[in-house]
Amino acid sequence: MNEVIASPAFFIGRGAEAGNLISFGSGQPDLPPPPAAYNVLASYRGFKYGRVQGEETLRQAIAKEYPNATPEQIVVTNGASEAIDLVLRAISVPGGKVALPRPYYYSYPHNVELAGMTPVYYDLVDGKIDFDAFEKVVRGCRAVMINSPSNPTGTVQEVATLKKVEKLCGDLGIYILSDEVYKDLIYVRENYLLTGKRVVTINSFSKTYAMCGFRLGYFHTFDEKLVEDVVEMKSHTSMNTSIGSQAMGLAAMKERDTYVPAHLPIWEERRDLMYKGMCELDLDLWKPEGAFYVFPKFRDATRAMHDLYYNYDVITYDGTWFGAPKRLRFSYALDVAKIEEGLKRVGKFLENEYKTYPA
Amino acid sequence: MNEVIASPAFFIGRGAEAGNLISFGSGQPDLPPPPAAYNVLASYRGFKYGRVQGEETLRQAIAKEYPNATPEQIVVTNGASEAIDLVLRAISVPGGKVALPRPYYYSYPHNVELAGMTPVYYDLVDGKIDFDAFEKVVRGCRAVMINSPSNPTGTVQEVATLKKVEKLCGDLGIYILSDEVYKDLIYVRENYLLTGKRVVTINSFSKTYAMCGFRLGYFHTFDEKLVEDVVEMKSHTSMNTSIGSQAMGLAAMKERDTYVPAHLPIWEERRDLMYKGMCELDLDLWKPEGAFYVFPKFRDATRAMHDLYYNYDVITYDGTWFGAPKRLRFSYALDVAKIEEGLKRVGKFLENEYKTYPA
Repeated sequence: MNEVIASPAFFIGRGAEAGNLISFGSGQPDLPPPPAAYNVLASYRGFKYGRVQGEETLRQAIAKEYPNATPEQIVVTNGASEAIDLVLRAISVPGGKVALPRPYYYSYPHNVELAGMTPVYYDLVDGKIDFDAFEKVVRGCRAVMINSPSNPTGTVQEVATLKKVEKLCGDLGIYILSDEVYKDLIYVRENYLLTGKRVVTINSFSKTYAMCGFRLGYFHTFDEKLVEDVVEMKSHTSMNTSIGSQAMGLAAMKERDTYVPAHLPIWEERRDLMYKGMCELDLDLWKPEGAFYVFPKFRDATRAMHDLYYNYDVITYDGTWFGAPKRLRFSYALDVAKIEEGLKRVGKFLENEYKTYPA
Repeated sequence: MNEVIASPAFFIGRGAEAGNLISFGSGQPDLPPPPAAYNVLASYRGFKYGRVQGEETLRQAIAKEYPNATPEQIVVTNGASEAIDLVLRAISVPGGKVALPRPYYYSYPHNVELAGMTPVYYDLVDGKIDFDAFEKVVRGCRAVMINSPSNPTGTVQEVATLKKVEKLCGDLGIYILSDEVYKDLIYVRENYLLTGKRVVTINSFSKTYAMCGFRLGYFHTFDEKLVEDVVEMKSHTSMNTSIGSQAMGLAAMKERDTYVPAHLPIWEERRDLMYKGMCELDLDLWKPEGAFYVFPKFRDATRAMHDLYYNYDVITYDGTWFGAPKRLRFSYALDVAKIEEGLKRVGKFLENEYKTYPA
């Protein structure tokens, strides 16, 4: 009897790449961080508490990437996850609603509920924001989450739409939490940085610098009262983010100009291979515009995920976890040979078990 | 006009030891971690997500320090702070009350409130639990926090009392959160490990291995449902604890048998110097039995803290932050020469400004 796979936690950090497994599961880069990130460790001798808000040097470096930003408007966190958790807790009001895109990153609804608020959803149309539907949902919300490029859809929102979102939320006084952790992984245009008085831009070293395991994220906002509230909260809930991770992140940023451009073509090659391969398998999917996911349709995603894992040693993530029960998420953060082998196995599954699934 | 000092956040991580300052403020060791903790960094090349619960090797090593414990009963966290935050959030019930010692570690009431529950207090008598008063307060509580050795009082609870606490809370089905982060810093006896089905033992690498800045903590509990709930929550709020910090912690543990015994006499020497010096200054205080704090009485602690900081370059923490407005907390985690200089300055303050304070 095979164990039922109830959530991504089943796979995360299990060394799922071992043996014969092909993992299209976890959303993390497979190529290592910039060498500078490790080089800084040999002579590192810090050990005392750091500033709860984050080391001054790191916040200075981050602030330079945001127009008109100051280091005082940055808070360094345990990954983007902690940034989302703390910001939502800090802005939480009784009965507050938070509008989430659907499909969504699987943690979002949990984050909203853990902060004592209620998630409501704006449904994406082919991975894009439908502004009229968006407007109806966000009125009366405390905050809205934007995620472009999107995990799991791989789509990037139109700049014209994002400008309308900024204007509407600005007029209504609604917080925008803009999760831009894939901002350096866009194939179709430059990133458009959402901005405004109540915009909170959430970012991370996990995707840009392949530092997932070190849990280094941050947010920027011009709302300095929010910064103050979050830092006060964080002084009780986790204190400073690991000083070792921060030293590594600062070193990594110094290689940004070589590291990031060198990796984008690698991601594009994989994207093209994955998209072409899936089209050849007659799967119905959007061409990824950013991040490293494809999100093809499957008649019964939960069953397909189990069959692929237990019968073909292929890890995929159930679309149900992302609010899309008729899709499977495939991460293509793995090398070309593995992508090709994985596609072959998916092909076999489609020819065999999948044919027997009810229409 | 001097800036008002409203909370410990004013001092934490500011490099407060610089210049002419004597810092009796922050509660962190001044001597570095075991060399092994740094040595492991030179060849460290991990970068992917780790298990949300913590690396298996580290949990195995920790479990060996707890009788009958298994690695599955350990969760590795961003310091003891995150352990407390997540456990309280996981056991939170509407209207739930959590009993805290008073004086308390300054984050406790915030942690309880941030978890949506209400703090109630059992007042310590000369730093010790008065069991009758304790019993009256804890009835009807969801959980109780025990902190022995105590920050800020420096006292250690009697074993006989701790056994009665175990029995009472076990009978009532109340969670015990036992914050034992100073367990390796006891001058008067071995640590007594509180145990029971609903006991959650919270610990940290910060004090034992001087790793404050790396934010490595953990908890142990036999309540495996609670472990499951916390890991699920942590997968959304911060994911794994920094893998670099975990590798350092595992290496540090291998030097436990030399590192910990070598440091205890250093702490004892400082404790003796501090206690004797304060007695000679006619201050009213308890002799520390553990941790590295003294907590003498002052007529107006808030005013005394400001005078000592702005007029004598001496950092102390206002007892008000710990629920004891007539005391000041002094950490003696600094070298003998600095302790002596600091005591001299306190002496001058007592001879000058303090004499003018109303009785």
